[in-house]
Amino acid sequence: MTLLAKMEAILGPEGLIRQDADRARYDQGARYDRGVSLAVLRPADTRQVAACVAAAARHGARIVPQGANTGLVAGSTPDDSGTDLILSLERLKDIAIDGDNASARVGAGVLLSDLNAQAAAEGYALPIDLGADPSVGGMVATNTGGARFLRYGDMRANVLGLSAVLPDGRVLSMGRGLRKDNTGPDWKHLLIGTSGVFGIVTEVELRLSPLPGDTAVAILVPAGPDTILPLLRQAERRFGTMLTAFEGMSGAAIRAALDHVPSLRDPFAPDPVPDYAILMEVSRTAAMPGDPPLDDLLQGSLGALTEEAPELLADARFGRPGQGWALRHALSEGVRAAGKLIAFDLSFRRGDTMRFCARMREELSLTHPEAVVCDFGHIGDGGVHFNLVVPPGSPCATDPAAEAALRDRVVRVAVRDFGGSFSAEHAIGRRNQAYYDAYADPVLRGLAGGLLRTLGGAGIGAARFD
Amino acid sequence: MTLLAKMEAILGPEGLIRQDADRARYDQGARYDRGVSLAVLRPADTRQVAACVAAAARHGARIVPQGANTGLVAGSTPDDSGTDLILSLERLKDIAIDGDNASARVGAGVLLSDLNAQAAAEGYALPIDLGADPSVGGMVATNTGGARFLRYGDMRANVLGLSAVLPDGRVLSMGRGLRKDNTGPDWKHLLIGTSGVFGIVTEVELRLSPLPGDTAVAILVPAGPDTILPLLRQAERRFGTMLTAFEGMSGAAIRAALDHVPSLRDPFAPDPVPDYAILMEVSRTAAMPGDPPLDDLLQGSLGALTEEAPELLADARFGRPGQGWALRHALSEGVRAAGKLIAFDLSFRRGDTMRFCARMREELSLTHPEAVVCDFGHIGDGGVHFNLVVPPGSPCATDPAAEAALRDRVVRVAVRDFGGSFSAEHAIGRRNQAYYDAYADPVLRGLAGGLLRTLGGAGIGAARFD
Repeated sequence: MTLLAKMEAILGPEGLIRQDADRARYDQGARYDRGVSLAVLRPADTRQVAACVAAAARHGARIVPQGANTGLVAGSTPDDSGTDLILSLERLKDIAIDGDNASARVGAGVLLSDLNAQAAAEGYALPIDLGADPSVGGMVATNTGGARFLRYGDMRANVLGLSAVLPDGRVLSMGRGLRKDNTGPDWKHLLIGTSGVFGIVTEVELRLSPLPGDTAVAILVPAGPDTILPLLRQAERRFGTMLTAFEGMSGAAIRAALDHVPSLRDPFAPDPVPDYAILMEVSRTAAMPGDPPLDDLLQGSLGALTEEAPELLADARFGRPGQGWALRHALSEGVRAAGKLIAFDLSFRRGDTMRFCARMREELSLTHPEAVVCDFGHIGDGGVHFNLVVPPGSPCATDPAAEAALRDRVVRVAVRDFGGSFSAEHAIGRRNQAYYDAYADPVLRGLAGGLLRTLGGAGIGAARFD
Repeated sequence: MTLLAKMEAILGPEGLIRQDADRARYDQGARYDRGVSLAVLRPADTRQVAACVAAAARHGARIVPQGANTGLVAGSTPDDSGTDLILSLERLKDIAIDGDNASARVGAGVLLSDLNAQAAAEGYALPIDLGADPSVGGMVATNTGGARFLRYGDMRANVLGLSAVLPDGRVLSMGRGLRKDNTGPDWKHLLIGTSGVFGIVTEVELRLSPLPGDTAVAILVPAGPDTILPLLRQAERRFGTMLTAFEGMSGAAIRAALDHVPSLRDPFAPDPVPDYAILMEVSRTAAMPGDPPLDDLLQGSLGALTEEAPELLADARFGRPGQGWALRHALSEGVRAAGKLIAFDLSFRRGDTMRFCARMREELSLTHPEAVVCDFGHIGDGGVHFNLVVPPGSPCATDPAAEAALRDRVVRVAVRDFGGSFSAEHAIGRRNQAYYDAYADPVLRGLAGGLLRTLGGAGIGAARFD
């Protein structure tokens, strides 16, 4: 029997897609990547996933697991060989909320928005915030972080257990929804953030958090780049665990968003957009008897800060949280619309983030004066979406070698000179493979190879760690 | 050259302890365990640790790493063969606080109390709370959880990076103090909670949290066992991230502590100690302008709860936080003093914790009516220190086989019938090895074996995972 006939026997006719037109939305990634698959497998449950993986392993065919296909590193799309099999988890849609355990057991194909709609009915949320609407399985595979990381952590911090299909088709369950469990090596961490290489996650149990009942937002204008970190430390000291976001936005990124999305409210009008601004959010679960409104608390506290440390803050604007977040979430789209975008997903020790940006601005003003730095990011966790926008006709927009050289230089400065990460929250996929190959510790690469040998299969998916 | 001569050449005379009297405090564990070592190695830095491990690997000698020796599962002490080498990390004492990064880079031998004294000067803490004063390296090796887990997580949630000496003596650094870094498998998680088997952690970078400025405590008396979970959910909904502890204490454990430590204040006097009570703590980093005192908030909120849901709460007592925590931290000592103690460190899905305790109480009342159940634990994270106190002359106190049979039964019910963990926060060590051997998934044991082969050495320390 041919491989595809075998897959059809496993999946039934509705579980296998072969026509070009029907495969198109699976072959096309969210932003950059597009490939050509042999077929799309749409298993209905973990058992079918396991049977598909075992059959592919016996035929030496490569499977690329795919969730909602919103990733940014070509981790969920096929290459252009026409031989990859896409394995879509989109039919694994079960959601079971356990209110007492404050957890949810969900299929890998469940969308974040669907999980949060059901969780909200019980007063809970998976509070990982990002612009896209990924599937839970994809969030595990990339270890999604997002804009409220400083309060709620990444996926890793919220996964209580998972089931996965290993490269040879065996099914493994790890964790049983327990919060404390130290009965040996916690192997599930090797399935988190690794794009499915060591196994395809089919089911996840997630810790939920109480739904915030009350949120207030301010947009801060720091007096200068050197006051951003002191402002963060003041915010942490004053608000502690109520601080749920501290997001930096360069003026160039803000202007690009305002230009591109006319419905956005300019929080600075009629004044000009400043060089840099911070979206700060505080939240509480519920107001308690005697509690002042949260907006009053935030304004009062920032007022007190302005009196105590007038050198830190040039301005603070208040408004409805939805408006601030609409601006924040429009930055990415605005920057893409502003010209040819060369985007980096970097992170640093928190004290280094702004130093790196300043250093690159200075260097690029000499070597690439046409490039506009439109950075924004997560000051609270050291992450920075370092974006360069170059004019359509410039060398880096027209010559792939020039763009690649610029990319390599930025990454080298980030990793070698600043000890930073070349993939803060997007994982590896095909897009970051060359940087993994360049910078990963050879001992750790050896461990990945040893693990794959023990798992009895070649790795799954687009990335390679050995 | 003999092994010990080689060790002396590496460490110098002050780095090697051979005399019985000088080795005694290293050979003796915190509570249960006592062994006989060949010698104690006291390296001064990571380089010396690596040289010792390499030399031991070449001689086929077993090294048992040791921190402050406060563990409860015989993970840091030698067996009684007289051939094990204890490797003490006590000389690795460097502490470097990075305030901007809200992190600390510390040697494995640094005590939690010493780290927190230095961190407090910068307004930070490593907020993992437990009765003992362990070393940071030991906390990583056991993945310490503790009483404020529901707010701050375990060590795993707070480790930003570490350096470790692998079983063949190579040194590996993982993580560079970054919060977001998804550049491949996050191997450091295999070094956390694994008692040093895959490598000896010599240096750790830890995320710090802002020091709480304001804390209030109440002791709640639930109306019955069935109201404990609803009370937790109410507390989470009302206090959200301000809730820093929700600790259950059985009446039997409280009475044992009050009997044993006369300086403790009985929070219920002159009323009798209830069947069950909960120590609930809320914290905030700083009061903000207009904020009512935290004690008022807590009392007001519990008052409102009593009006809204009078069926949940029988009573609530308020007092100074220090008094509540003194009682909580005396439970363990009190229970040990009450008779022959048979202790379990279990965890469950949160909804199962009290059901397990009720089931065991019922079964034991038939089979072991002489046993007093003195449970206490972490209702907020499902952990329970399930303690049985039996009279000195009873079979389980005098016959090791009877005790072992009882142990095995309690663990079997916890793991098999309730899907729980037989080691919530104490890890494996020698004491839990038999349960690992009985309950670990064979596939995962195979992974451990494959990893050790790739690491090029037998495992380090007292536990075995292959």
